[in-house]
Amino acid sequence: MKEYLKKHEWQIIEEGFDPHYNKISESIFSIGNGRMGQRANFEEDYSGETLRGSYVAGVYYPDKTRVGWWKNGYPEYFAKVLNAPNWIGIHVSIEGQKLDLAKCKVENFTRVLDMKLGLLSRRFVATLADGKKVSVEASRFCSMARGEVGAIRYAITPVNFSGKATLSLYVDADVVNTDSNYDEKFWEEIYKDASEGSAIVTAQTKKTHFHVTTGMRYVVESEGKPVKLDRINLETREKFAANVIQFDLTEGKETVVYKYGAVLSSENHEKDKLVSACVKVLNDAVATGFDKLFAEHVKIWAHKWEECDITINGDVAAQQGIRFNIFQLTQTYTGEDERLNIGPKGFTGEKYGGVTYWDTEAYCLPFFLSTAEPKVARNLLVYRYKHLPKAIDNAKKLGFKDGAAFYPFVTMNGEECHNEWEITFEEVHRTSAMAYAMRDYVDYNGDEAYFTEFGLEVLIGISRFWSQRVNWSKDKNKYVMLGVTGPNEYENNVNNNWYTNYLAAWTLKFTKRAIDYVKKNDAKRFTEIVSKTNFNESDEVAKWNDIIDNMYFPADASRGVFLQQDGFLDKELLTVNDLTKADRPINQKWSWDRILRSCFIKQADVLQGIFLFEDDFDIDTIKRNFDFYEPMTVHESSLSPCVHVILASKLGYEKLAYEMYLRTARLDLDDYNNDTEDGCHITSMAGTWMSLVKGFGGMRVREGKLHFTPFIPSQWTSYSFRIEFRGRVLKVNVSKAGAETVLESGEALEIIMNGKAVVLK
Amino acid sequence: MKEYLKKHEWQIIEEGFDPHYNKISESIFSIGNGRMGQRANFEEDYSGETLRGSYVAGVYYPDKTRVGWWKNGYPEYFAKVLNAPNWIGIHVSIEGQKLDLAKCKVENFTRVLDMKLGLLSRRFVATLADGKKVSVEASRFCSMARGEVGAIRYAITPVNFSGKATLSLYVDADVVNTDSNYDEKFWEEIYKDASEGSAIVTAQTKKTHFHVTTGMRYVVESEGKPVKLDRINLETREKFAANVIQFDLTEGKETVVYKYGAVLSSENHEKDKLVSACVKVLNDAVATGFDKLFAEHVKIWAHKWEECDITINGDVAAQQGIRFNIFQLTQTYTGEDERLNIGPKGFTGEKYGGVTYWDTEAYCLPFFLSTAEPKVARNLLVYRYKHLPKAIDNAKKLGFKDGAAFYPFVTMNGEECHNEWEITFEEVHRTSAMAYAMRDYVDYNGDEAYFTEFGLEVLIGISRFWSQRVNWSKDKNKYVMLGVTGPNEYENNVNNNWYTNYLAAWTLKFTKRAIDYVKKNDAKRFTEIVSKTNFNESDEVAKWNDIIDNMYFPADASRGVFLQQDGFLDKELLTVNDLTKADRPINQKWSWDRILRSCFIKQADVLQGIFLFEDDFDIDTIKRNFDFYEPMTVHESSLSPCVHVILASKLGYEKLAYEMYLRTARLDLDDYNNDTEDGCHITSMAGTWMSLVKGFGGMRVREGKLHFTPFIPSQWTSYSFRIEFRGRVLKVNVSKAGAETVLESGEALEIIMNGKAVVLK
Repeated sequence: MKEYLKKHEWQIIEEGFDPHYNKISESIFSIGNGRMGQRANFEEDYSGETLRGSYVAGVYYPDKTRVGWWKNGYPEYFAKVLNAPNWIGIHVSIEGQKLDLAKCKVENFTRVLDMKLGLLSRRFVATLADGKKVSVEASRFCSMARGEVGAIRYAITPVNFSGKATLSLYVDADVVNTDSNYDEKFWEEIYKDASEGSAIVTAQTKKTHFHVTTGMRYVVESEGKPVKLDRINLETREKFAANVIQFDLTEGKETVVYKYGAVLSSENHEKDKLVSACVKVLNDAVATGFDKLFAEHVKIWAHKWEECDITINGDVAAQQGIRFNIFQLTQTYTGEDERLNIGPKGFTGEKYGGVTYWDTEAYCLPFFLSTAEPKVARNLLVYRYKHLPKAIDNAKKLGFKDGAAFYPFVTMNGEECHNEWEITFEEVHRTSAMAYAMRDYVDYNGDEAYFTEFGLEVLIGISRFWSQRVNWSKDKNKYVMLGVTGPNEYENNVNNNWYTNYLAAWTLKFTKRAIDYVKKNDAKRFTEIVSKTNFNESDEVAKWNDIIDNMYFPADASRGVFLQQDGFLDKELLTVNDLTKADRPINQKWSWDRILRSCFIKQADVLQGIFLFEDDFDIDTIKRNFDFYEPMTVHESSLSPCVHVILASKLGYEKLAYEMYLRTARLDLDDYNNDTEDGCHITSMAGTWMSLVKGFGGMRVREGKLHFTPFIPSQWTSYSFRIEFRGRVLKVNVSKAGAETVLESGEALEIIMNGKAVVLK
Repeated sequence: MKEYLKKHEWQIIEEGFDPHYNKISESIFSIGNGRMGQRANFEEDYSGETLRGSYVAGVYYPDKTRVGWWKNGYPEYFAKVLNAPNWIGIHVSIEGQKLDLAKCKVENFTRVLDMKLGLLSRRFVATLADGKKVSVEASRFCSMARGEVGAIRYAITPVNFSGKATLSLYVDADVVNTDSNYDEKFWEEIYKDASEGSAIVTAQTKKTHFHVTTGMRYVVESEGKPVKLDRINLETREKFAANVIQFDLTEGKETVVYKYGAVLSSENHEKDKLVSACVKVLNDAVATGFDKLFAEHVKIWAHKWEECDITINGDVAAQQGIRFNIFQLTQTYTGEDERLNIGPKGFTGEKYGGVTYWDTEAYCLPFFLSTAEPKVARNLLVYRYKHLPKAIDNAKKLGFKDGAAFYPFVTMNGEECHNEWEITFEEVHRTSAMAYAMRDYVDYNGDEAYFTEFGLEVLIGISRFWSQRVNWSKDKNKYVMLGVTGPNEYENNVNNNWYTNYLAAWTLKFTKRAIDYVKKNDAKRFTEIVSKTNFNESDEVAKWNDIIDNMYFPADASRGVFLQQDGFLDKELLTVNDLTKADRPINQKWSWDRILRSCFIKQADVLQGIFLFEDDFDIDTIKRNFDFYEPMTVHESSLSPCVHVILASKLGYEKLAYEMYLRTARLDLDDYNNDTEDGCHITSMAGTWMSLVKGFGGMRVREGKLHFTPFIPSQWTSYSFRIEFRGRVLKVNVSKAGAETVLESGEALEIIMNGKAVVLK
């Protein structure tokens, strides 16, 4: 755990330059706009430790899989969103000396991420080898208004001299991924051009042949007036184009270089029109100018904050933490493009390849449901609808049939990318994440018509999977599910994981609800779906009913708890308190078999199930299970604590809820797990949001109505959160004195506050 | 399945050259002498499909591990016996045209492995591009008498011309492994020299720094007289040294090149004396000459065949098959060096890295016990004794303590090399292979003193492992063993694998027997062992007794069978007859999860346990378990059928026993599994031997006495096998008329034939 960042309500602030923290800061200070994203690398060269990262949404490479021992059914490739061409780069030389913060004295260094404005800025004074001091102020943003535009203001002031500055303003597609299985480069050049005032490179990804055109233009000013350039040299080499410019610096006088970047991909343009489109985007940006571009951008951020801000009074660290999470989520996914999804690290790093996991449905969807217009969450569902044919192929490849759909554990285009058998083939619960995400969406927005348009086809496919994945046990006289891994990945290849069995049975029921809805509301469309999916309603539903009625759920009657899986009680039942410091985290200290044999839980799947289907269980059952499993849970997944916060809040374990919350809220800011340098835990940030809103705030939707049962942690004086709900914006204020809910916009609404109906106007 | 080889009692014969079979033949026709081995590659260049392979026992490289997803506790490297410097190579040019069987017309091709003589020979007539025909006869052997010597007789006869032959006689350490995780070369040059008449290269393995010196000398003769050479050019390049010689060929006249190879390693010589030792070995070989070297070699083979031959009358294919298995086993391991062991492919290929598996103890040891002097099997045990400290380290690394010993699944020097968690960490039964191998050795030879010298230390370590690997289940009120993989690798991470639980409890009992023996027979040594191992006899044995008395064994009372593991009866219980042809082999046709969920068995572990501890079970129990599990067994391990042959023989299922036997006996000769090109299944060949001797012959040792209950498959007229037993050589002859046993050498012996005592004199 590190605490080198200053606390501030709206800003993340790093003061003083410590190269050891640079890669961590590069992650934390990342900026993006849903279309593209950029780690907080320096514009100028830096020869110290750095992880350069520019990312373009949807542009990926199918890197050849690396496995130790091949298992039948493994995918051939692992898709990864790539480190994309660099648009921010400026080589800076002052009087022939290269500016490189790893090689000169650095003073007054500050790096600030202003979350309200979506702006990254940095300032420092560098002393070069010959004693010349130069002051730099650099700021940049990825425009929320123009998804293909980034802009940089790079201001240089010589402190103790006058002389020549030489800047190479470039775009560079000769970039590498740190995460490459066979040390390949993934980009090849298609086009490059350096003209006076601009440079453009089009590169394509190998194999997938995405084209990305990266361009830049620039303006040099001093005191608001154009600066005369001594010379402009055009430079190109393989995958690289630049303007090298030289101009005079005058002691004490600021010269400002505005660099406008454009990043366009063939996902949004025809390949042969990319260059002309790029030129236009650049020209428009230059014509608009930095200040106006920034103003457009800030306006959108202001609107976003109005939709989703959370305030916490009495605890600046908590305030900063929650806003950081909201900021990162919001700039990672804007919901405008149904082909996109949310990588575990967003645009902040390469790890996990930027691909889609069930994190999206289980953790991110609730955030976007409550903080953005309905189409944002809907697009996340449509993304999976479009992958349905691939999910059916995937199931077929593994031996399932008749239209069974098995969604991949990790994917970019709908095809499976993961290759650990115990996860790829066995962590089957993820396929039903598509179902409960649909339930959440439909129930939150009252949009059951989604079943008709898209949902039912998906549900039929998933239900078919479950009906084939279970088998009848003559021994138990029940349906059983063998060989699975639950969300608690510290158990592999178990039989009858309670969570998975419950989810399977629930999915079958939920599918029946969707069938009933579609039949009743659009008989023609139902017939169409029956025909398209070759659905034999009577036989298939009869089988589903049989499974629903006869599914086996492992339980311990004497303790009154559900069992994670068959045989769980054969373990030595310890608690986390029995572990020494030397044992933690067990995923670093213990061999894998020891972890598997132990009772310790990475992420409690029984509790995950209770959280998802809370209203199916009485409070005593919830309490017994929580009291049994919580003490065994080591929370070695960043996705674990939020579920415990929410259940602990419900059970009145306020102290525990708050302690758990702290583990998630500043996970990256304080580099809790020593891994922020790889990127931020974007998807788990949505869990932090849920912890506060569903945990402390007690927000639920039941039968179309919002419910709240708020409490306030004793460390805080008050907090508030804003949510969107069916055309309204609500603000919930919670203080020691109690909670009040304000309808900020939209029609009157009845909500249930602490069990009592209240009408908001 | 292929049947391109001619059947013959003592020879393997390939007639006609089909390049498609070349890699298969290279495996099958391999020769070795326990110290070194050589695939049946051509001496001259061959540009077609070939897997070049020369191997030096004990010389390995720790190739950097390749895994998809790292698990805590994985080893960093996978040791592999390397493709070693080439000593057989001769580039041949006839009148300036390179001889390459891939590029000329080949007639009268024959390749013969004479198993009686240990000789590989080959003849052919090649027509070169310009129509010149040349007849070649090449034969070679790896001397059984001189472990560092190989000799080649390469005879050239021009058929329709006279002209010049140019031969480059070389040694070459610039060789590669096909099996290399990161495409590295593993050898680097230390020394090279080409002098008139000889060439020597010393190369060392990277990282492990084994030195191997490979040298050659040669003699060229015609009609028994030296041939005058036109010229001798000396050639060296990186890791390569040669003599290029030219001489005249006369139409119809044979010129013979004798190439003598020497392969010496730093395992047997001081590094700085390798070259001089090599010179001496070569000089001695040249002085002895090919014919005398060959005579020495044949004499040893004759003696070996006297010890271990099996004859089968009435079935040449079966006769050839069993002799091939015996031949390969015998030339792979001679038992002279306790540092060596038996790789799954012996010296016939790279696959499985030439490293040691539990195959040695479970399958090979019984063969060497019965066919070689006692020290051979003993050295296999001592090999593991010497690895005991590493086995203790290995256990410690995985969280065990106090001297628990966990033998690796795959090893070269005692360190674990395998990295599939479900095997590396979970296929724990292999650690007790060291115990039952010890039992087999002690009981066969009556050498209980082995406990005192080596055995007890090993047994204490293993027993400590088991006592920590089990845990007490409050739920079952029994000791359980969680998270294991049995020999049936089509189940992973199961609880209470019957075989493993049985083996663990048996090991504890067996350790007590060893303790009693050592205490009684050598109290001083016992005290020494107690002190060395820090053995707390009373506490530890008390704990072991508790485990022995309270171990849980899964069983199905209604069927009267043991269960492979907990939950086995939840599966859909099918038989192999329910599978279609399209399903087989399931390890190629089904996804891994489907295999795991199914009831199908790769290698039946319950039956393996019954085979090992046969006398613990009554015949009805054996029958019920065999009848239950045999129909589910797909035998997709080459180690599987032999156990079924032995049990089927015992149960009187003679037809089934014979069918199973056929699957193993000619596995490589007929390339049954389409994988012989990778090398021969050396360790499973010992299973074939067991099938015949313990299966058909019914050989057992009980209380120091040999028992036999022979039957003869109806397809054979008679068969016989020879075994060594406590200083005697016995020959058992079985015909339709009955069985008789002849004492070929040694003192009188009482044996039990079909339940009746017979004294042999």
